[in-house]
Amino acid sequence: MKYPNGQEYKPNSKKERQSHKSKAEISLSSANRGMDLEHEINLSNDYYRDHDICLITKRPTPINIVKVDYSKGAKITHAYFEEQSTTDYNGVYKSRYIDFEAKNTKNRTSFPLSNITKHQIEHLKRVLFHGGIAFFIINFESLGKIYLLDASYVIEFYEHGERKSIPYDCFVTNGIEIEQGYNPRINYIEAIEKKYF
Amino acid sequence: MKYPNGQEYKPNSKKERQSHKSKAEISLSSANRGMDLEHEINLSNDYYRDHDICLITKRPTPINIVKVDYSKGAKITHAYFEEQSTTDYNGVYKSRYIDFEAKNTKNRTSFPLSNITKHQIEHLKRVLFHGGIAFFIINFESLGKIYLLDASYVIEFYEHGERKSIPYDCFVTNGIEIEQGYNPRINYIEAIEKKYF
Repeated sequence: MKYPNGQEYKPNSKKERQSHKSKAEISLSSANRGMDLEHEINLSNDYYRDHDICLITKRPTPINIVKVDYSKGAKITHAYFEEQSTTDYNGVYKSRYIDFEAKNTKNRTSFPLSNITKHQIEHLKRVLFHGGIAFFIINFESLGKIYLLDASYVIEFYEHGERKSIPYDCFVTNGIEIEQGYNPRINYIEAIEKKYF
Repeated sequence: MKYPNGQEYKPNSKKERQSHKSKAEISLSSANRGMDLEHEINLSNDYYRDHDICLITKRPTPINIVKVDYSKGAKITHAYFEEQSTTDYNGVYKSRYIDFEAKNTKNRTSFPLSNITKHQIEHLKRVLFHGGIAFFIINFESLGKIYLLDASYVIEFYEHGERKSIPYDCFVTNGIEIEQGYNPRINYIEAIEKKYF
């Protein structure tokens, strides 16, 4: 099952998410193929929340409800996924507004912008305009490397880039590599500290 | 149809929301009975966004998906509403993180805390801890008055109040009355300016 943007659907409920992942799947081998990036970030956010480091939450997937069966305690019987017009994550760190999108790519040389929507770019431009911290977390699966890249670069490549992709070099030069560990899995706050504070 | 917290369900899609409101319903009479507070705040947020005043969005209603029919383009055939473990709205204004919950009450003398969840209180305590701006927008329907009250008061009454309600006087003394107009409908940013900047 796919989102409108072509991403694989991952169940929202934490229990469901955890149940469909084995220890092997979440192994931290340097080439983290098939890593469930959303799941890893959600676990990292739980860690950050429980340790009072920051408060960042995933926006629920917007769903367009067509029909509800009242006879069974508000059971939704007909609905569709809507395209996320914003980003997946936002929250607060050191009183600053944080807003980001996380994406996987199997590509080794560049990050294709094909599954980033115009709405998300517009949203991120507004976040930057209002003084928020906006970035992308990109997981280069085949390289086992995860980078934080400020949204301004993605906006620039999206709107003025010749090819619809961002070269890996841009991440190495302008991004911050995110340390992967056991807990937090994806320590992106450390990268935010380096980049923005 | 009701949310787990007892609130009336309002369709997520803007078109649906607007279609079920007549001009009469959204009249700005001083006693704004039956005002669709969520709808009015969403319209105010659209105005703020389009005029580059701030960027505040409503979190989609979390939905627990049980079954999806792939044969019809990812049609959700079985799902349930989940309780919102955070607040309904968050975003950025002048680089500060903003987080709030909006509620209606028909009560003239106090705001009952019955439909505020422990999860929401925990969430708001964390927002304040991390330096975010957290508050409630309470619409006293029968009085035609809307107040912004800092979350700290709500947390205090929720955790240590004798009665599970906040007296109207507390809003008059410690809150900021929000001006209602045509556009923006509910000018809560003006109240935020008075209170926090």
